[in-house]
Amino acid sequence: MYRLHIANKNYSSWSLRPWLLMRELEIPFEERLTPFDADSSWVSFRAFSPTGKVPCLIDEELAVWDSLAIVEYLAERHAGVWPEQSQPRAWARSACAEMHSGFGALRSECPMNCGLRVRVTSPSTPLQHDLARLEELWQQGLEAFGGPFLAGAAFSAVDAFFAPVAFRVQGFDLALGPGAHAYVERLLALPGMRDWYRAALAEPWRDEPHERETLSAGERLADHRHAP
Amino acid sequence: MYRLHIANKNYSSWSLRPWLLMRELEIPFEERLTPFDADSSWVSFRAFSPTGKVPCLIDEELAVWDSLAIVEYLAERHAGVWPEQSQPRAWARSACAEMHSGFGALRSECPMNCGLRVRVTSPSTPLQHDLARLEELWQQGLEAFGGPFLAGAAFSAVDAFFAPVAFRVQGFDLALGPGAHAYVERLLALPGMRDWYRAALAEPWRDEPHERETLSAGERLADHRHAP
Ligand SMILES: N[C@@H](CCC(=O)N[C@@H](CS)C(=O)NCC(=O)O)C(=O)O
Ligand SMILES: N[C@@H](CCC(=O)N[C@@H](CS)C(=O)NCC(=O)O)C(=O)O
Repeated sequence: MYRLHIANKNYSSWSLRPWLLMRELEIPFEERLTPFDADSSWVSFRAFSPTGKVPCLIDEELAVWDSLAIVEYLAERHAGVWPEQSQPRAWARSACAEMHSGFGALRSECPMNCGLRVRVTSPSTPLQHDLARLEELWQQGLEAFGGPFLAGAAFSAVDAFFAPVAFRVQGFDLALGPGAHAYVERLLALPGMRDWYRAALAEPWRDEPHERETLSAGERLADHRHAP
Repeated sequence: MYRLHIANKNYSSWSLRPWLLMRELEIPFEERLTPFDADSSWVSFRAFSPTGKVPCLIDEELAVWDSLAIVEYLAERHAGVWPEQSQPRAWARSACAEMHSGFGALRSECPMNCGLRVRVTSPSTPLQHDLARLEELWQQGLEAFGGPFLAGAAFSAVDAFFAPVAFRVQGFDLALGPGAHAYVERLLALPGMRDWYRAALAEPWRDEPHERETLSAGERLADHRHAP
């Protein structure tokens, strides 16, 4: 059975991607959660991941590190990871790769912190640029392939790649048009997303660097996490 | 025939990856170079690329943007993009994805600028960390799969992904061990790399932001580019 190493569900956006993909596609795996350690995540994660980062998938002796490589590894072994048709598949891969190395302002200014609600006081120009691009990209996928998911009728890896964005939109109440908002709601309603969220709220850990980063985005409105 | 949009060969590290891969695998394509414009690359690149970035591959009507998505698109259509065996292939994909979203210090502190030679005055801790990881990763691949390329006997996409690093090591004289240096020399000696380098030196364009970034790394030693 696959073993998937992840970190805190409340914070770890990259972990969420393969976790959600495997959950929604019903690919069995054992979850292994190692919480962030403000001093030495690198050290504790290095025990299983060559980059000292999560996620990392272990299949027998083989370690597949990095969320995008995990997706391609699974795509060779399970149906449904990518759309079946060549054109939406090429689109989905482009969108995933763009997310993988892009959207820097969105990622750094609005870090995933499932339980918190923050009002962004002054969205930077790069953040506004990222949001405009996000909206354009989603709309293109939803229109070209008919929805309700980004590359067509079925949930696939490209939706898993944007799932952390759904938590960011919810947490920071980011301004998007109605089509994009409906898509965010669709992601948040997935069984896997609801389970992840519930587990995130119940986690006892608070990681100072992540908390600081989140709150530097603006004004704290609410914290839905259970008291640790 | 494929059309591959790229930017200046002297600067555009992301463009080099799919370009070199296609050259070395003898996949025919038409090259379309649009130089950076300090004021508005985004505007001029948007004419053909949805992200306003290069590279972008056009296949008939279809645009595949982002170097990693281009690689996967080609892998579905041409032999040799990834290693044939499952284990080196999983490793190669992990290494490419790690490069795609990681090695931030190496990328920002030592930007690709083929023609310049710069002495790095004080390598930052993150840069040293990136170089240590780079060396570890390369050594792991070269040992596990027998070399002389990262994932075995044949040049594949993972070598194309690290090709820009070879120009950075050369340009900034980065300190690496003998195994890594020999690998850099092997990359620089590829026919495609030599052609790219020659074309880079002959380019008439100087892009101020790229020049400034390169020189902020340290002391300028030499400029091998032809006078514009
Ligand atoms: N490109 C990697 C990024 C992984 C990543 O940055 N993971 C974060 C957690 S979400 C991490 O492990 N950080 C630990 C650290 O930097 O110490 C992927 O897609 O898997
Ligand atoms: N993740 C993208 C990155 C592409 C990228 O950043 N390209 C640079 C040139 S090397 C670019 O087009 N920059 C133009 C700009 O940012 O205005 C890829 O792999 O293709």
